[in-house]
Amino acid sequence: MAIVLGPNRYGKAETRLVRVVRDGDVHHVKDLNVSTALSGAMREAHLTGDNAAVLPTDSQKNTVYAFAREHGVAQIEDFALLLARHFTGTHDTIHHARVAIEEYAWDRIGGTGHSFARNGGEVRTCVAHHDRDGRASVVSGLTGLVVMKTTGSEFHGFATDPYTTLKPTTDRVLATAVDARWRHTGTSADFGASYALVRDALLEAFAGTHSLSLQQTLYAMGERALAACPDVCEIRLALPNRHHFLVDLSPFGLDNPDEVYYAADRPYGLIEGTVTRDDAPDAGFAWE
Amino acid sequence: MAIVLGPNRYGKAETRLVRVVRDGDVHHVKDLNVSTALSGAMREAHLTGDNAAVLPTDSQKNTVYAFAREHGVAQIEDFALLLARHFTGTHDTIHHARVAIEEYAWDRIGGTGHSFARNGGEVRTCVAHHDRDGRASVVSGLTGLVVMKTTGSEFHGFATDPYTTLKPTTDRVLATAVDARWRHTGTSADFGASYALVRDALLEAFAGTHSLSLQQTLYAMGERALAACPDVCEIRLALPNRHHFLVDLSPFGLDNPDEVYYAADRPYGLIEGTVTRDDAPDAGFAWE
Amino acid sequence: MAIVLGPNRYGKAETRLVRVVRDGDVHHVKDLNVSTALSGAMREAHLTGDNAAVLPTDSQKNTVYAFAREHGVAQIEDFALLLARHFTGTHDTIHHARVAIEEYAWDRIGGTGHSFARNGGEVRTCVAHHDRDGRASVVSGLTGLVVMKTTGSEFHGFATDPYTTLKPTTDRVLATAVDARWRHTGTSADFGASYALVRDALLEAFAGTHSLSLQQTLYAMGERALAACPDVCEIRLALPNRHHFLVDLSPFGLDNPDEVYYAADRPYGLIEGTVTRDDAPDAGFAWE
Amino acid sequence: MAIVLGPNRYGKAETRLVRVVRDGDVHHVKDLNVSTALSGAMREAHLTGDNAAVLPTDSQKNTVYAFAREHGVAQIEDFALLLARHFTGTHDTIHHARVAIEEYAWDRIGGTGHSFARNGGEVRTCVAHHDRDGRASVVSGLTGLVVMKTTGSEFHGFATDPYTTLKPTTDRVLATAVDARWRHTGTSADFGASYALVRDALLEAFAGTHSLSLQQTLYAMGERALAACPDVCEIRLALPNRHHFLVDLSPFGLDNPDEVYYAADRPYGLIEGTVTRDDAPDAGFAWE
Repeated sequence: MAIVLGPNRYGKAETRLVRVVRDGDVHHVKDLNVSTALSGAMREAHLTGDNAAVLPTDSQKNTVYAFAREHGVAQIEDFALLLARHFTGTHDTIHHARVAIEEYAWDRIGGTGHSFARNGGEVRTCVAHHDRDGRASVVSGLTGLVVMKTTGSEFHGFATDPYTTLKPTTDRVLATAVDARWRHTGTSADFGASYALVRDALLEAFAGTHSLSLQQTLYAMGERALAACPDVCEIRLALPNRHHFLVDLSPFGLDNPDEVYYAADRPYGLIEGTVTRDDAPDAGFAWE
Repeated sequence: MAIVLGPNRYGKAETRLVRVVRDGDVHHVKDLNVSTALSGAMREAHLTGDNAAVLPTDSQKNTVYAFAREHGVAQIEDFALLLARHFTGTHDTIHHARVAIEEYAWDRIGGTGHSFARNGGEVRTCVAHHDRDGRASVVSGLTGLVVMKTTGSEFHGFATDPYTTLKPTTDRVLATAVDARWRHTGTSADFGASYALVRDALLEAFAGTHSLSLQQTLYAMGERALAACPDVCEIRLALPNRHHFLVDLSPFGLDNPDEVYYAADRPYGLIEGTVTRDDAPDAGFAWE
Repeated sequence: MAIVLGPNRYGKAETRLVRVVRDGDVHHVKDLNVSTALSGAMREAHLTGDNAAVLPTDSQKNTVYAFAREHGVAQIEDFALLLARHFTGTHDTIHHARVAIEEYAWDRIGGTGHSFARNGGEVRTCVAHHDRDGRASVVSGLTGLVVMKTTGSEFHGFATDPYTTLKPTTDRVLATAVDARWRHTGTSADFGASYALVRDALLEAFAGTHSLSLQQTLYAMGERALAACPDVCEIRLALPNRHHFLVDLSPFGLDNPDEVYYAADRPYGLIEGTVTRDDAPDAGFAWE
Repeated sequence: MAIVLGPNRYGKAETRLVRVVRDGDVHHVKDLNVSTALSGAMREAHLTGDNAAVLPTDSQKNTVYAFAREHGVAQIEDFALLLARHFTGTHDTIHHARVAIEEYAWDRIGGTGHSFARNGGEVRTCVAHHDRDGRASVVSGLTGLVVMKTTGSEFHGFATDPYTTLKPTTDRVLATAVDARWRHTGTSADFGASYALVRDALLEAFAGTHSLSLQQTLYAMGERALAACPDVCEIRLALPNRHHFLVDLSPFGLDNPDEVYYAADRPYGLIEGTVTRDDAPDAGFAWE
C-alpha cells in the first residue's frame, strides 16, 4: 500500500471583472465573477514543491482581464470557452481547464445612457471545460430565482409511517429559489437565446403547472425547458421548498382562510432532480 | 457612586409575515419582516426578575400575525404605527413602542394571477415610534438599491498630505448601494406615494448629477428627495463607494481606455450625510 | 424654508490590516479591520463639489498602513486614538475623527512559533473619537460571543393579554450571542486588561446568575462588568434570545424530559439595555 | 428521442437539533444540523404527482428528533448511519438514503456544569450513505479551520507566460481555510478518535511543512492524515489561498520588512486535491 496523489486542480477563484463598452453616449455593462481551475502535470508541485508546471493563479487572473480587452465579452459561455481553450492550448503542462462565470444583471435607469441599477434577481451562471485533446463542454444556469404560487399547489396521498404527523392539503403556498443548470449538446449554441428560452420555460412551467408535489413541478419545469431548447440535452434542478405555514389564529378568536402565513427559514424541503433526453450524449466532465 | 439601569428595550425581532389577499383569481402578496421593541416600567424585571410588567416577546409576535388578519396590511408605515399604538395603548407598563418593518417586493409572473417572482432589488423599510403620551414618528427608507454610473463622475482638487498617493481623475466609474431613510413631518402621509417619489428622486439625482464627488451626489440626492416630497423633512443617506479600479494592462502590451475594471470588495469609501429642511421639527425619538 | 446640509462624515471602511511582529522565531500577529470616518468643513464638497477640504479616503487607508509600521499596534483602542488624533491634528478642515476597529484573534498552533489557527469566537471591537478641541472618547466591546445555559433559567409571572399563549416555564435553555460595548471614563486605560476583566465578568455573570428573565441576566452581566472595571462607566448590551424549543415527541409515543430541542432562527427575542454608574460623565459623542 | 427523468433525490435540509444530556449537575450538549435526502421509486411523483412513494420531508424531520431521544447521539457518523439505515430499511419505495450532519462545538465555561460558550472554530461534518442492498459509506470532514503561517512559505520557479507579472518570493504569509473530507474504508470506525487524529495531522503538517507551494502543503496534509489513520483511505482538501499582500510603504519613506500586510478578499487562489491509498476500495456513492 502506498499513499498517492489523486485528482487535483488549482486556479484563481472569483476574479471580479466589470467591462464597459461605450457606444457614444450609450454604454453597456458586463459584470462578471470569473473562476478558473487548471489541472495537468502537477505531480511534482505536490510531491516536491517543484513549480515548473504551475502557471500562477495570478497569471490566470491577468489573463481574464487582458482577454476582456483583447477579445471583448459577449455571452459568458463563449468567454469561458475562450479562456479554457487558451489555457490548454498554450501550456503543455495544463491538460484541462474549467472556467466558471457568474453574471450580474444591470438595468438601465430610465432614459439614461450610462446610469444603471443592479437587477437583484437571479444570477446567470456557466461552467465550461476544455481539455488538450479538444474535448469541451458547456453547462449554463441560473441561481437565486425566487418564485411563489399562492394557490394551485396540493400535497396529499403521500406515504406515512409512525413518524408522520403532516396533514394532507389541497391548497398551499408553494415557494422556491430555483437553482438550474443545463447542459448543451455542443459548444456553439446561441447561449443568450437559449438562456432566455430556458428561463421563460422554467417560469411558465412553475406558474402553469397545477402542482401535486414539488417533484412534479420540478419535472414539468425541466421538461418544458428541454422542449423549448433543442440544443439543451439535460437539465438539473435544485428546488428548496421555502415553507409558508398558515398561522393558527384560533387562540385569538380569529379564522385564517389562507391569508396569514409564517415564512420559515429552516429546516426546508430540498427537491433535486435531473430531466434529460434519452439520447443525450455522455456528459463526460461537463458537471465537474 | 451606584450602578443603575439605563435605557433599555426588548421585543421580538424578525417576525416573518406573508399575507395573501385573494381577489378572485388575482392574488396580492405582502412579504414582511417585523421587529417590535417595547420599553417602560421594566426596572423590576432587570433588578429582581419580577416579570409582571413584561409582555412576552411571543405575545408580540402573535399580535403581529393577528393584526394582519384583523386589520390587513396596506402601507408598512401604517401597519407599524397601528402596532406601536396598540402596545402603548393597552398595557400600562409599556410606555414606548418601536416597530420596524422590512418589505420584500414580488412581481407578478407575466399574465398570471397568483404566481410571483421575487424582485431582488432594494428592500423597503420603515421605523415607527409611539409613546403613551401620543407622540409618534415615522421614518421610511430603502436599502440595497445598487446603482452605477459609467461616466459623468470626477474626483480631483482634493486635500493632500504625505500619505496621499491617489491620482486625480476626470472620469471614473461611480457605484454605490443606496441606504436611505427619510423622516416624515407627521404620521398620516400617503406613504406609498412618498416612497415612489423619493425613490424616483434618488435615482434621477444619482443619474442626472455630473458628480465631482460622492458627497456632492449624496447632497443632490437628498435635496431632490426633499424637493419632491413636501411631507418629508429630513433624509439620511449612507453611500458606500464601491470602487471600480481600471486594470493596468500595459504589462501585456494593451491599453485600457476606460473599459476593463476590477470591482473591489474592501476597503471601500463610506459617505454618510443628512439633508434637512431648516424648519424641520425636532426629531425626538424618530431616529432611535 | 430652505434645504440644508445636516450632519455628515466620510471615510474608508474596512481596511484589512495584518501586522506580524517577529521576535526571532516567535512571531506575533495582529489581525484588524479598521474603519475611519472624518467630518469638518465639508459644506462645499457637498454643495459645489469643491473637494479642497476632503482628504481622500484612499489617504486614510494609506495612513492606517503607514502608522502600523511607524507606531506599531498594541491595543486597538490606543491605535484608534492615535489615528483619530492624527487626522484632527494635521488637517484644519477635519474637525472630528471616528475610528472603529475590529480585532480577530489567532491562537498559536501548539509548540510552534509562527503557525496560527484563527480563534473563531468573539470579535473584539472599539470605537474612538477625537475632535480638534482635544475631546476624545473610547468605547470598547465584543461581539459574537455565543453562550448557552442548559438549566438555571426560568420565565414566568409575565404580563398577559388576549394575544398571549406562551406557557410559563421554570426550566428552559437560555442561549444568546453577546454584543457588548463599554465606555471608558478616560482614554488612557490599560485596554487589554479591562477587556479581559469585562469579558470574564460577562461570562461569570451569565453562567452564575439563576435567571428569571434575560433582562435580569443582562443587568447582572452589566453590573458585574462595571464592578470589575473601575475605569468603565457605562455598558450597553444587546442579547438576542436564541430560542431552543423542546420538541413535542408525544405523537411518537415518546416523552421528552428536557432533552431534545429545536434551535430556531427567526423570530427571536431581542433584549437591549444599558447599565451605568450614576456619576458617569456625559457621553458626548462616544456612542456615535 | 424522448424526455425522461434522470437521477433525483429529496429530503429535509438543515434540521437544527440540540440534545442535552444531564449527568446530575454536569450537562453535555450536542448541537447539530441534519440534512436527509432519499431516493427510490419516485418516478410517479415526478410524472403524475402520485405521492404514494413519497415519505414527507416533515416525517424525515420528525424522525431525526425522535431518534435523538430513542437512540441518543454519540458520534455524528453513527447517528447519520442509523438514520440512513432506518429510511432504507423501513420503506420499500426508498432505495437509498444520504444523511449529512454538521456539528458545532461548545466549550464548558470554566468551572461550571451547565454553561457553555460556542467554540467558533471549525465545523465538524459527515455524510453517510446507505442503500437497500446494505451498501454503506461514511465520509467525515471539517470546514472553516482557518490557519496561517507567517514564514516558512515560498513560491518561485513557476511557469510564466506573457500574462505573468508575479514576482517569485522566498518568504510569504500563507493563510487558508481548511475544508477537508475523508473517506473511511468501512462504517464502524471510532469516528471521534479518527476525527481527532486527522485534525491534528492536518494542523501539524500545515505548521511543519516548509512550503514551496500550497499544492505541496496540501499533499503533505493529506499524506499525514492518511498515515495517522489506517481507517481512512482517501482525503479531499480544498484550500483557498487567502492572500496577504505586503503593503508598499515606500511612497511614505518607509520600508516594510515583512511586517504590514493587506488581507485580500477576492480573488483568491483555490487549490483542490485528493490524497488516496493506492489500494483504496472503490468509492461508489460515498462522495455524492
